[in-house]
Amino acid sequence: MSDVMKDMKRSFRDYQAKHFLWDVSEDGRVATLTLNRPERKNPLTFGSYAELRDLFRDLAYSSDVRAIVLKGAGNNFSSGGDVFEIIEPLTRMAMPDLLAFTRMTGDVVKAMRKCPQPIIAAVDGICAGAGAILAMASDLRVATPEAKTAFLFTRVGLAGADMGACGFLPRIIGQGRAAELLFTGRSMSAAEGHAWGFYNALHAADALDAEALKLAHSLADGPWFAHGITKTMFNQEWAMGVDEMVESEAQAQAICMATQDFRRAFEAFAEKRKPAFEGN
Amino acid sequence: MSDVMKDMKRSFRDYQAKHFLWDVSEDGRVATLTLNRPERKNPLTFGSYAELRDLFRDLAYSSDVRAIVLKGAGNNFSSGGDVFEIIEPLTRMAMPDLLAFTRMTGDVVKAMRKCPQPIIAAVDGICAGAGAILAMASDLRVATPEAKTAFLFTRVGLAGADMGACGFLPRIIGQGRAAELLFTGRSMSAAEGHAWGFYNALHAADALDAEALKLAHSLADGPWFAHGITKTMFNQEWAMGVDEMVESEAQAQAICMATQDFRRAFEAFAEKRKPAFEGN
Amino acid sequence: MSDVMKDMKRSFRDYQAKHFLWDVSEDGRVATLTLNRPERKNPLTFGSYAELRDLFRDLAYSSDVRAIVLKGAGNNFSSGGDVFEIIEPLTRMAMPDLLAFTRMTGDVVKAMRKCPQPIIAAVDGICAGAGAILAMASDLRVATPEAKTAFLFTRVGLAGADMGACGFLPRIIGQGRAAELLFTGRSMSAAEGHAWGFYNALHAADALDAEALKLAHSLADGPWFAHGITKTMFNQEWAMGVDEMVESEAQAQAICMATQDFRRAFEAFAEKRKPAFEGN
Repeated sequence: MSDVMKDMKRSFRDYQAKHFLWDVSEDGRVATLTLNRPERKNPLTFGSYAELRDLFRDLAYSSDVRAIVLKGAGNNFSSGGDVFEIIEPLTRMAMPDLLAFTRMTGDVVKAMRKCPQPIIAAVDGICAGAGAILAMASDLRVATPEAKTAFLFTRVGLAGADMGACGFLPRIIGQGRAAELLFTGRSMSAAEGHAWGFYNALHAADALDAEALKLAHSLADGPWFAHGITKTMFNQEWAMGVDEMVESEAQAQAICMATQDFRRAFEAFAEKRKPAFEGN
Repeated sequence: MSDVMKDMKRSFRDYQAKHFLWDVSEDGRVATLTLNRPERKNPLTFGSYAELRDLFRDLAYSSDVRAIVLKGAGNNFSSGGDVFEIIEPLTRMAMPDLLAFTRMTGDVVKAMRKCPQPIIAAVDGICAGAGAILAMASDLRVATPEAKTAFLFTRVGLAGADMGACGFLPRIIGQGRAAELLFTGRSMSAAEGHAWGFYNALHAADALDAEALKLAHSLADGPWFAHGITKTMFNQEWAMGVDEMVESEAQAQAICMATQDFRRAFEAFAEKRKPAFEGN
Repeated sequence: MSDVMKDMKRSFRDYQAKHFLWDVSEDGRVATLTLNRPERKNPLTFGSYAELRDLFRDLAYSSDVRAIVLKGAGNNFSSGGDVFEIIEPLTRMAMPDLLAFTRMTGDVVKAMRKCPQPIIAAVDGICAGAGAILAMASDLRVATPEAKTAFLFTRVGLAGADMGACGFLPRIIGQGRAAELLFTGRSMSAAEGHAWGFYNALHAADALDAEALKLAHSLADGPWFAHGITKTMFNQEWAMGVDEMVESEAQAQAICMATQDFRRAFEAFAEKRKPAFEGN
């Protein structure tokens, strides 16, 4: 990173989180974000939505954190928007405030998709409502056999169309399964989630955090600039035609080929050693 | 529903079907549409296509029916367009008539996608050609282990591109499997269909109708206005980019949050009782 | 084919390949393209990319070949871009040359998607990097239980976004699985590939070629003009909305209904014999 760029960047090693836990590995490369109200199964609140939005947005300018693990405290991922702290106030709001709220929750998803760091959701126990959306909006998902994921908006009289679910979920698990989950609000078991491609792997509860961290570190120690491009292109190509996809990747990969990381990887390969990537 | 809106709406309880059976549950909420020429495995004809198109279009203005079960009589779903009643006349038609026909069959799919009611296909036995398309164009699909689904257009010298299949099917079962089914016309077994996400569940033949009705009633007794929004958004977001998906759902969900059904659901939750939705 | 069209077309029966083997069946209908440097696991080179691009482009004008089997010699499919013959020179190239290279590899994918012939990848052993892309860009894929498919661009410091992978792969195996394969570069086993819909079928190594050829011949002996339309529409509808998909297929299928092949298929059906398609 050239000197003039340093003013555009900042460290997230000492970020002081207000509404959740934020823990960064010793090497500064992997952050663990823990939703932390275990007695209530880690619900989301107006404040935590806003902080998630701001943090994920700012992570685009991180000088250190390269991968993120997203988890919940106490053997549950998240119960979603709290019924009394979020749902009740919403039932009394005027339209402009309702739209401001749904746009804020949507902005969390947008910020998760737009930050360059791969986000790995580590899901145990309850993963419901907006909690299920946070898992869905992550790049990779690992879970325990006890994970129960439910897009239960319909249970509170709402549409399954929440924070992009009608667009994202069909691409992850297929249109028919997504329709069932979003129309009925029923729980998807861990075994279903794995068989359907929602979860990348299942691990025992006492191994989940370590496995999620291991995966995060392997990405953070890899070509993390290129990983950021991979993530960008997944987003960019969501609704592109065939020709546009191919031309977009021709440009994106040419950018990566112009990096020293590419040369470093080749030299390490030729010398049969592990490459050290510097993100330039 | 306000009084002035009543003129825009109509009841489908007493709809008199000409080319199939139409049966509405006592509460008016669930309609069962049965393709009913069992001795020919319930083929489609010019007349039945046209009536399906008109009926599904009109259902957008239903004042009572909230969910639909689509099935065939006599242990088969549908053999599709009849070879002698449809294929033979088509082989002699001029282009404008051919296009008028393919647009009419396409209009059945569009009308099925555009009506707000979730459509549940209950598939037993033969489900072939345009019959397979009707199942594909439904929102949810349940089947018996005996269901045999074949997009067999290629067997009559036609493209797999029929009524949207090259676009819809990849999103339901994946691009590679869709390519195989549409290029070869081979039959997809019930087990494959379930494993691939085409079918949401398999049931024994003597339980299929009851299970499909149970699912339909559970949706009809739920927040059916919101379900209509969910269905709309699945259609709307088919080819949207990431940002557009999220903003579209921010607006769609804000609409649902402005309904009394949302308040009703919250109050029922707080009082630990089952909510009664009114669609407003 | 009318006489005046013959000047637009050419035979590929005697095509003399420089960088791979090209073998056409006795009836001229099925070509087998074999990557043939088995001692190096059939890597791709600048020359073979360019020839693949030109050949697949020209196949749009074939007067004989109707389906293609794509395979590797010696129990491996392809190890992808050769590290010393491709990667090393790329690490020293200026941007215009890098972009020229990524556009050329992308043009191979575009040409594979745009030629009307269904392409069946027959995958044994190593299927890595650009080799995995060639399999991905095919229409159908069969493999042996020993097939190991890895999109390992990340292992050489590059993005998973190569030749359209971030757009194509999610549609074949789902977004979450595609993210794992493209971020980590890990190998997908044959069993995973089959369960996820990447492979249409698995066959023992000594049966693979015969099975791939059998499938290719069944397509080549079928309504091959209509198959070309099916392939076109899969490409066309990649990023279309619901209404556009249906109208596009109304037009595409009307074209097929105006062919004599359609009439031939009907007459053969009525007379209970096998139809002979002529592509007109």
